[in-house]
Amino acid sequence: MTEQVADDLPACSIERSLQVLGERWTLLVLREVFAGRHRFAEIRATLDIAPNLLSARLKTLVAAGVLEARPYQEPGSRQRHSYHLTPAGWDLRLVLGALQQWGDVHRPRTVGPSSSRRSKSGQSVHVAFVNDDGVEVPTRDVEFVLNKP
Amino acid sequence: MTEQVADDLPACSIERSLQVLGERWTLLVLREVFAGRHRFAEIRATLDIAPNLLSARLKTLVAAGVLEARPYQEPGSRQRHSYHLTPAGWDLRLVLGALQQWGDVHRPRTVGPSSSRRSKSGQSVHVAFVNDDGVEVPTRDVEFVLNKP
Repeated sequence: MTEQVADDLPACSIERSLQVLGERWTLLVLREVFAGRHRFAEIRATLDIAPNLLSARLKTLVAAGVLEARPYQEPGSRQRHSYHLTPAGWDLRLVLGALQQWGDVHRPRTVGPSSSRRSKSGQSVHVAFVNDDGVEVPTRDVEFVLNKP
Repeated sequence: MTEQVADDLPACSIERSLQVLGERWTLLVLREVFAGRHRFAEIRATLDIAPNLLSARLKTLVAAGVLEARPYQEPGSRQRHSYHLTPAGWDLRLVLGALQQWGDVHRPRTVGPSSSRRSKSGQSVHVAFVNDDGVEVPTRDVEFVLNKP
């Protein structure tokens, strides 16, 4: 949602994010769209999610401006929608990347990670804190500071 | 959880992470512990969460090795536990930081963010993808690549 959110919403931005994302299925639906699955039937087949639940999650994500619904029509079928990441949706790559990395380290499997993060030039990348010059800062040196109201 | 997780678990590390974290309250409970609130009553007072729900969330986080329960006893009271981040818990700072940053940008409030990310030396920091040399890589240049099984 790029428009301003009303100020009766929670002051904490983690909480505002979780109002849209704080549910296991929601982030798994987004994982599917990132993986190139855009249609209801494709997403449903991979996730094995109940249709009414998937409908509800897609509706929330569209309403929040994370996904965009585009109409399409196959010959002989009714019009349907496919779901595509908006710029706000693309920015969630960092959230998914951070979750993926945490799972790789703290919930590992013997066979190793199923997926890796790479730059387009093939470099291995990871999620980290960086300063304004784009240089990594160790996570243990980072603090969350409350702003003066 | 630093010990190996059984291999009948989901191949996707995002999904394995969400098995522990994929619920709005869970991440908000962790936010409270990061903010220095360690006791049941303190966390409950800030979050306004039902006691049975908070109990269940704390139990999940302790079982997953994200929080450690330490006994304490106030004079005249029964023994209670306070909850502290394990190393796996501290590593979730990146996940919370990524959620915070996304909320600041895509769910903004007119009064601005309630909290900022800073290094101990006072530098402003943000969550980003970096390469193995610790240099930021633009998010749009990052791809998730499936590893060969």
